[in-house]
Amino acid sequence: MSIEFQVRTNSGAARLGRLLTPHGEIETPVFMPVGTVATVKAVPQDVLEELGVQILLGNTYHLYLRPGVETVRQFGGLHGFMSWPQAILTDSGGFQVFSLNELRKVSEEGVTFRSHLDGSSHFFSPESSIATQIGLGADIIMAFDECTEFPADRARTKASMELTLRWAERSKKYFEEHKQEVPWAEDRTPTTLCHSEHAQSAGEELAVPTPSPSSTQATQSLFGIVQGGMDLDLRRESAERTVEIGFPGYAIGGLSVGEPRERTREVVEATLEYLPKDKPRYLMGVGTPEEIVEYANLGVDMMDCVLPTRAARHGLLFTSEGKITIKQARYAQDHGPLDPSCPCRVCRRYSRAYLRHLYASNEVLAQVLNSIHNLSFYLDTMRRVRHSISLGEESRFLSSVWARPKA
Amino acid sequence: MSIEFQVRTNSGAARLGRLLTPHGEIETPVFMPVGTVATVKAVPQDVLEELGVQILLGNTYHLYLRPGVETVRQFGGLHGFMSWPQAILTDSGGFQVFSLNELRKVSEEGVTFRSHLDGSSHFFSPESSIATQIGLGADIIMAFDECTEFPADRARTKASMELTLRWAERSKKYFEEHKQEVPWAEDRTPTTLCHSEHAQSAGEELAVPTPSPSSTQATQSLFGIVQGGMDLDLRRESAERTVEIGFPGYAIGGLSVGEPRERTREVVEATLEYLPKDKPRYLMGVGTPEEIVEYANLGVDMMDCVLPTRAARHGLLFTSEGKITIKQARYAQDHGPLDPSCPCRVCRRYSRAYLRHLYASNEVLAQVLNSIHNLSFYLDTMRRVRHSISLGEESRFLSSVWARPKA
Repeated sequence: MSIEFQVRTNSGAARLGRLLTPHGEIETPVFMPVGTVATVKAVPQDVLEELGVQILLGNTYHLYLRPGVETVRQFGGLHGFMSWPQAILTDSGGFQVFSLNELRKVSEEGVTFRSHLDGSSHFFSPESSIATQIGLGADIIMAFDECTEFPADRARTKASMELTLRWAERSKKYFEEHKQEVPWAEDRTPTTLCHSEHAQSAGEELAVPTPSPSSTQATQSLFGIVQGGMDLDLRRESAERTVEIGFPGYAIGGLSVGEPRERTREVVEATLEYLPKDKPRYLMGVGTPEEIVEYANLGVDMMDCVLPTRAARHGLLFTSEGKITIKQARYAQDHGPLDPSCPCRVCRRYSRAYLRHLYASNEVLAQVLNSIHNLSFYLDTMRRVRHSISLGEESRFLSSVWARPKA
Repeated sequence: MSIEFQVRTNSGAARLGRLLTPHGEIETPVFMPVGTVATVKAVPQDVLEELGVQILLGNTYHLYLRPGVETVRQFGGLHGFMSWPQAILTDSGGFQVFSLNELRKVSEEGVTFRSHLDGSSHFFSPESSIATQIGLGADIIMAFDECTEFPADRARTKASMELTLRWAERSKKYFEEHKQEVPWAEDRTPTTLCHSEHAQSAGEELAVPTPSPSSTQATQSLFGIVQGGMDLDLRRESAERTVEIGFPGYAIGGLSVGEPRERTREVVEATLEYLPKDKPRYLMGVGTPEEIVEYANLGVDMMDCVLPTRAARHGLLFTSEGKITIKQARYAQDHGPLDPSCPCRVCRRYSRAYLRHLYASNEVLAQVLNSIHNLSFYLDTMRRVRHSISLGEESRFLSSVWARPKA
């Protein structure tokens, strides 16, 4: 058992689903906060739990450099290392090699790149990326791909897509041969083992439907990634051939790389058409609050983005009344909560004036509170989207509010 | 009603007390975390509550510069502005003017100084310091004093002490004439007013013994500050003449300014002798965990220091097993909690290896978690001291553990 996905309700193209992983259940569509180096920047894990986070994303590139896969493996993987018992997904490192390394060298074998930390030289191949991701022990891991740059001509885009397809085969092959090496087993407590053995000796299924890491069959799941640049034909070909290789879930990569937003939507829509309806579909690296609603409506099940936390650290806050740049002097005497409709602990307790003061004073607490609120807003947005889908409605609430000019 | 202080038990020179303030009760000896600009750096207010913080310190100098007293006053004072319903103490700004301003100019009237933020010129007098502190609305405020530099000869020390005594009189005079201007009244809710009026019309005391800000008699309390440098005779004279002026509590200032630690202890001990036993005694700006235990044993009731939070941000952590410099490579694979004896949320959840990784990666969460733990350690230390006093024992536990060389 690795993952199990059920579509429970459809509403137009949108789907309400349930993704079972070895570390808990996820309601989809889901927004996954980014915890680059085993921390969602500035937010303690218990607050993430309180916010209802069901799955986090970790960045293989960063974790490989620091603290290194061996350290994480010794703790039973990322779950143990960062003390996060729920689901985790790691990317393959391909995107960071692409976006953080101007001096990278791509060959058939893999990518040579320099660390952004100390300039040291490193090499990622499909095999080494998967080996690293097995050591990190996320529930869902990603095939190693090449993120095609934007703009790129058709020949370059096709060549890059073909490389990603060959790498997808190699990623899958390595994963199938090594997936039993996931470090969860080492971290199992005797108590958990006993429970598991007891259930097995009684010849019964565990009463709890959520699969647990103590199940001896549990492994990670490897998702494939569709590339093909901005070319709709190549996107179709990439989708079909990736599906042919066969994965338990599919991601759409190579977007949010500088293309106009309408183009992103067009490519997403065209690609989704060729992805199987019974498998989770993950759109990588998006987006704004409007975008995550829009893509969920198109039928995307999973999304991740650094925007809520990165924007928070720069004082850009998302609210039900629109965006707020908290450093503005207009908020210096504002007694109201950041977002009157938000139930998060920041909006329940603090005024805009206080948050503005913290930000203007360059206080660490500004980063903490702003990040908590923005994550709460994203997660709440997804909660509303799921509610709308369950009612058979399109989730329009957000775009209509945001389109209104700010008073 | 402003404050009320009861000594409940004595054990040697140490005392277990209870300090009632308009914003709640404080058990003494107490350690007060420093919230310089209306935030204990990196720690959300709800976590401070969870840690059992009963009183916070705010710095008048910093708050005067940013966000400014008028903003804070509009929120009903610091309690409303930073959403901290429990007790607060503000210093007078005298120490910061001394420590952050090499170009300050002291005259009989007051001190001209330059802002460390933008170099702009400002002036503090006893009257303006008290006016600012009334606007900030802390429960306990401090007389404006001159912190005598170290070293200083006897003539200079005496002149400085005399200035502080004259300023103490002016501080008290201004406070008595203006103490009704504390901004709490504006922030009272109709409900609170009703309760208060009801109690008065019934001609009865409120059933709850803790005085509340809704009591119409509630004002702030102004503490005097003893100076006198390292000269024991001058300390005695300063103490006696400050007591003669008359305050509901007394602070020992002018220490931790570079003198050897044995000298600090000597001066503290000599000064305490001349302070009334029925009033709270506050030793300003100390200290290490060993020191706060030592001074509590000498009979100090209140202490504050930036050390737990500042050290935390630099990766220096206090534990029951001694000090830990978390960046050291020896902790990179350490599965154990930071402090096995500590019940705080950091020690319950995270490993030393994870905390080391966060610090090495310069992650904001390192500052958050380290600060929470160090504060927890300080507050827990004071809790143990109070417990020892209640049992009639001297609190020796800490020094004995810390004296042991680290394995």
